[in-house]
Amino acid sequence: MLQVWGLAGIGEISAGDDLAAIVGDALAASGEEPSDGDILVVTSKVVSKAEGRSVVADDREDAITRETVRVVATRTSPTGHTTRIVENRLGIVSAAAGVDASNTPEGTVLLLPVDPDASARALAAALRERFGVRLGVLVSDTLGRAWRDGQTDHAIGAAGVHVFEDLRGGVDAQGRPLVVTLPCVADELCAAADLVKRKTTGMPVAVVRGRADLVGDLDLPGARSIVRTGERDMFRLGADEAYAEGFAAGSGSA
Amino acid sequence: MLQVWGLAGIGEISAGDDLAAIVGDALAASGEEPSDGDILVVTSKVVSKAEGRSVVADDREDAITRETVRVVATRTSPTGHTTRIVENRLGIVSAAAGVDASNTPEGTVLLLPVDPDASARALAAALRERFGVRLGVLVSDTLGRAWRDGQTDHAIGAAGVHVFEDLRGGVDAQGRPLVVTLPCVADELCAAADLVKRKTTGMPVAVVRGRADLVGDLDLPGARSIVRTGERDMFRLGADEAYAEGFAAGSGSA
Repeated sequence: MLQVWGLAGIGEISAGDDLAAIVGDALAASGEEPSDGDILVVTSKVVSKAEGRSVVADDREDAITRETVRVVATRTSPTGHTTRIVENRLGIVSAAAGVDASNTPEGTVLLLPVDPDASARALAAALRERFGVRLGVLVSDTLGRAWRDGQTDHAIGAAGVHVFEDLRGGVDAQGRPLVVTLPCVADELCAAADLVKRKTTGMPVAVVRGRADLVGDLDLPGARSIVRTGERDMFRLGADEAYAEGFAAGSGSA
Repeated sequence: MLQVWGLAGIGEISAGDDLAAIVGDALAASGEEPSDGDILVVTSKVVSKAEGRSVVADDREDAITRETVRVVATRTSPTGHTTRIVENRLGIVSAAAGVDASNTPEGTVLLLPVDPDASARALAAALRERFGVRLGVLVSDTLGRAWRDGQTDHAIGAAGVHVFEDLRGGVDAQGRPLVVTLPCVADELCAAADLVKRKTTGMPVAVVRGRADLVGDLDLPGARSIVRTGERDMFRLGADEAYAEGFAAGSGSA
């Protein structure tokens, strides 16, 4: 049985707040103290706020440009709205480079944490120490997907959690090797947590209980190990962008 | 509180089996009879088996070719293994067009259900009738993702469940509209279910309890409404493929 619940009592977070203390207090007050193997899923927005990642930006588009390492694809809608799919410095491909202008004061935007894996490690270390239990922490962000509408939550930071469940050495019920199965359980945990977090009601942390087997040492690989960039990425450019590059090369104008 | 558990007692499924009766018996025997608002997540593999979608195929690659509507991208690894990312007739972009050769008898492969939304509707209708409760059904498949390693489970069939939670009319805590948020809750539910299904142990159905607000009429849009194909798809071709098309056009050889 997997149980997932949102943690009540986490108010507005400001720059410099001790997020581990605030989350720990909410856990202690919840009537359900953490157990070995619990996994906390923390929305990146509150991590960013505590880390002072709010920046003044009259123009969200400028902030996106500054956060972008590489433009993957751009499209302008008939109404003139431009969507940019970009790779950010964390290797994450998403719309808008994680620059968030919702639930932020007018004239400011919120950037992603500088190093979400390190943020997750700091939170996990502090909470393991405080409660004397072995828990894991994931930092989640809401991302769109190629080929599918809508968004789901994904892991952009991880500490003390196996981000993949490696079944590749396993066998199926006929005894044949399960060759290509590598479930990204970190993303699945973040998706499960999003089902209880309710974006509109300010409940930025969820607890997942029931997969203690996925919790391990704090030096396990982080969420950075999930992103696929560079040569292994078959979708490093949008189709229009790649076509245009090829056309220019073929016509000798590149 | 969201609760997710795997349903024990579903044995090997064969062509012609009455899957609704088998799942219903497992629900009845589980000691936890279905409640209004429960969502069943059924692995597509057992739906396919019950529907007789096993075909003789000495060559899995031939079966993939037959299931493919459009090749999106192809890559051959240094060891000679070719990965094909293709769009199948359901509009789903995935490796291998959903052709499954694990947990199938030698010399056969398993194709996806012909119409997973219809399969979900038939299951949901039969189980609603039998138990007199309003439940939802999702049919899940394991899919890779662009830009991220590993796989997560996604919804390829849906009945009686809102596949998107439409927050677009909502406002954030500052009262500003949440413009682009459209959580694909169907995919998040399938991801949560995968965390309890354990691919290697033959537990193909999970129950999700705690999001009764997402359960509705059987004629809600199905999972077909999730896929993004055609003009709106910025990644309709792999970067190498689009570049090559552009190069050929630019050099006048196309």
